[in-house]
Amino acid sequence: MSRPMTPETMQQYRQIYEEELFERVLPFWVQHSPDRDHGGYFNCLDRDGTVYDTRKHIWLQGRQVWLFSRLYNNEEKRPEWLSLAKRGADFLDKHAVRDDHRAYFSLTRTGDPLWMQRKIFSECFCVMAFAEYGRASGNDYFIDKAHTLFNQVWQWKDDLSLVGRPSFSGQPATRSLAIPMILLNLIEVLAGDDWPSWRSRIDHCIENLLLHVDEERELVFEHVSPGGECINTIEGRLLNPGHAIEAGWFMLHWALRLGDESLQQKAVQMTRWSLERGWDYAHGGIFYFLDSEGFSPTELEWNMKLWWPHTEALYACLLNYSVTGSERDLRDFEKVHNYTFSHFPDHKYGEWFGYLDRRGDVSQRFKGGPYKGCFHAPRSLFQCVQLLRRLEAQPRQ
Amino acid sequence: MSRPMTPETMQQYRQIYEEELFERVLPFWVQHSPDRDHGGYFNCLDRDGTVYDTRKHIWLQGRQVWLFSRLYNNEEKRPEWLSLAKRGADFLDKHAVRDDHRAYFSLTRTGDPLWMQRKIFSECFCVMAFAEYGRASGNDYFIDKAHTLFNQVWQWKDDLSLVGRPSFSGQPATRSLAIPMILLNLIEVLAGDDWPSWRSRIDHCIENLLLHVDEERELVFEHVSPGGECINTIEGRLLNPGHAIEAGWFMLHWALRLGDESLQQKAVQMTRWSLERGWDYAHGGIFYFLDSEGFSPTELEWNMKLWWPHTEALYACLLNYSVTGSERDLRDFEKVHNYTFSHFPDHKYGEWFGYLDRRGDVSQRFKGGPYKGCFHAPRSLFQCVQLLRRLEAQPRQ
Repeated sequence: MSRPMTPETMQQYRQIYEEELFERVLPFWVQHSPDRDHGGYFNCLDRDGTVYDTRKHIWLQGRQVWLFSRLYNNEEKRPEWLSLAKRGADFLDKHAVRDDHRAYFSLTRTGDPLWMQRKIFSECFCVMAFAEYGRASGNDYFIDKAHTLFNQVWQWKDDLSLVGRPSFSGQPATRSLAIPMILLNLIEVLAGDDWPSWRSRIDHCIENLLLHVDEERELVFEHVSPGGECINTIEGRLLNPGHAIEAGWFMLHWALRLGDESLQQKAVQMTRWSLERGWDYAHGGIFYFLDSEGFSPTELEWNMKLWWPHTEALYACLLNYSVTGSERDLRDFEKVHNYTFSHFPDHKYGEWFGYLDRRGDVSQRFKGGPYKGCFHAPRSLFQCVQLLRRLEAQPRQ
Repeated sequence: MSRPMTPETMQQYRQIYEEELFERVLPFWVQHSPDRDHGGYFNCLDRDGTVYDTRKHIWLQGRQVWLFSRLYNNEEKRPEWLSLAKRGADFLDKHAVRDDHRAYFSLTRTGDPLWMQRKIFSECFCVMAFAEYGRASGNDYFIDKAHTLFNQVWQWKDDLSLVGRPSFSGQPATRSLAIPMILLNLIEVLAGDDWPSWRSRIDHCIENLLLHVDEERELVFEHVSPGGECINTIEGRLLNPGHAIEAGWFMLHWALRLGDESLQQKAVQMTRWSLERGWDYAHGGIFYFLDSEGFSPTELEWNMKLWWPHTEALYACLLNYSVTGSERDLRDFEKVHNYTFSHFPDHKYGEWFGYLDRRGDVSQRFKGGPYKGCFHAPRSLFQCVQLLRRLEAQPRQ
C-alpha cells in the first residue's frame, strides 16, 4: 500500500489499462459510433450501443476526432483510426463551424443546425479536433483552420458578449476557471514542440488559472473576481473537484515543460487538495459539486459520482506520483483506481458507465449522451498507459 | 384503506394539513424571507432560514406575492399577509418588468438585473402576482398591469423568437406542455368569476394541452409535434410525471367549471396514468423524469424525488377523489400522502425539504433556492384544506 510502486505493480496496472482501453473502451466506439450514411458519429448511445437519438453534439464529435487522431499520432498508425478521425473531421468542417467562426453546439444527423451556445467551448473542441487530425492526416488545411479558429477564440475569451452572451448591470465581474484551462489544453495540442513561441499566451493562461487557487484555504474556485477574490454567492462558493483536478494536471504538464518547480508544487497541490476535499468518505468516489462554506450546492446532481472526475483524478494522481515519488500520491492513485475500476467499466458491453448515484449505483445506463462521448475514459487510460510505460522504463525520476 | 373517506378521516387529514400550513410552512417564510431593507424576499434560504445568497429570483418572488395575496383573499384578512404581499409586489413592479414587458429571471438584492431567460415564465409569474395582489389590495393599477402583461405573453406564446429565442434550421417544430398549462392557470387567476368572457382563450389552451395526451398509450408528453404526434428524440420521449399531474388538476378545474364531463374524465386520467407510470415501486415517491421508451433520461436528476411533483399529486388525487368518489383515487391520495408526509416536512425548522435522492434521503438541505420558494408546499396544503373543508360539509358529490 504505502511503498513505492514496484516495476511489477507498474506492469500490472499498465496491462489493466491497456486491456481496458484497447479491448473494451475503443471497440465500443469503433463499432457503434460511425454514421456510415451521413458522416460524423452517433454520440447518443445506449448501454449496448443502440442509438437512442441521432443528433450530433459538437463537443463530443470534436473530442472523438481528437482522440482517434491522437492514437494514430502517438500509438500506432492504424488506418482504421485515421479513417474514423477523418469521418468526424470532415463532418465538423462541413457542418459545425459557420463563416463567422462560431460553432454550433448540436446538429441533426445530416448536419443541420439545432442549437448554438453563447459560449466558446464548441469552438474549442473543433480546434482540438482540427489540430490533432491535421497532424495525423498531414493535411495543412486542418492545421490552418485550427489556428484561425484558436485566434478567434482568443479574441472572444475575455468578452463573451462577442458570442452573444448578454450582460446585465447587476452582474458581478467574474472569471471562470474553464477558460484558462481549456486554452492551456488547446495550446498543448496546437503548439506541440513549438511551444516556446507560445510563451506569452501560456504565461497569461497560467496566471489567470492561478487566480482561482486559494493556497491558504487549499481550495480551487470555479468563479472568482477579476482580481482573484472569492465571491460570496452560489457561483462564487462553487467547487468542482474533478474540474480542479483536471486543471491540476493541465498545469503540471506546463510546469514540467517550463521547468518551473514552484509551479509544479502548486499543480501537485491542486490535485491533492481537491481530491481530499472532494472525496466522499461515506460512500467513496468524488463528489461532482460542493459549496466551499458547506451549504448545499444548488446543482441537483452535486453528490453523484460521474466518470470524468475519476478519469481525470486517475491520471492526475499517477502524474503527481511520477513527479514526487511520494507515498501520498501513490495512495491517492490507488484509492481512485480502486473506486473507478470497481464502479465505472461495463464488462458486458464495453465503455464506462458515466453517471452513478452517491452510493455508486448506476443512475444512467447510457454510454454516450449530450455531454459524454469518446473522450474522458480513453484519454485517461491512454495517458496512464503512456506514463506507466515511461515509469517502467525509468522507474525513478 | 379501500373504503370511502369517512367524515372523521377527512377531519383528521384537514387538521394535519392546516397544522402543517399555518404552523410550520407559512411561519418559515414570514419569519425568514422578508428583505426589510430593500423590499422583496430573500428566496435562497438554508434549512434554518439563513440567507445563503441575496439574489432574488423572479419566478419565486412572483409566486410568493400570489400565495400571500391568495391567503388574504380566500382565507383571512390578516394585515400581515397583505403587507408581505405588498413588499413583493412593489419590488416586482419597481425592478422586475422592463418597459417592453420583458421580465428578468433574477435580480440582485437591490433590484439590479442579473439574468433574463429567453422564455416567458418570469412574465407569467408576474401576471399571477399582480392579478392576485391587485384583488387583495383593491389597487387597480396592479390588475391593469396583470392584464397588459398577460396580453403581451399571449402574443409571445407561439413564437419565442419574439423573446430572443434563436431558431435554427434543423430544429423540429414542437409544442411544449408548459405553455398551455401556465396560461390556463393564469386565466384562472386573472379571470375569476368573469371566466365566461375568456372562453375562446380557455378552449384554445385546453385544445393545445390535449395534444400532449396520448390516450392510447396512457402517456402525457412534455414535447409533441404541432399536430400532437410523438417525436422520437430525447425531448420528444420525455415524461415529467409531476408536471403532467399538475396539468391534470389545472384541466380538471376547468372541466368542472365548464361542466364538460368528457374533459373531466380525461383530466382524471392524466393524473392517474402519470402517477402510475411515475411512481417508483422500488423506493416509493414520484420520479422527476422518465423516457417513454425506457431509455435513461439524460437529465442527471431523473430519479430524484422532488417536493413539487408530490405536492401537485396530493391535491390532484384528492381532487380526483372529490369528483369520482372512487377507491382508486382515494388509494392514490393515501399513497402520496404517506410518502410525502414521511419524507418532505422539516419538523425542526419548518417548510419542506425540496430534494431527496431516489431512496428518499435529503440531498439538498435548503428550503429556498433558485427554483424553490414559498409556493408549491403552501399552495397544495391550502388547496387540500379548502377541498377537505368542502368535502366535510358535503361529503358526497
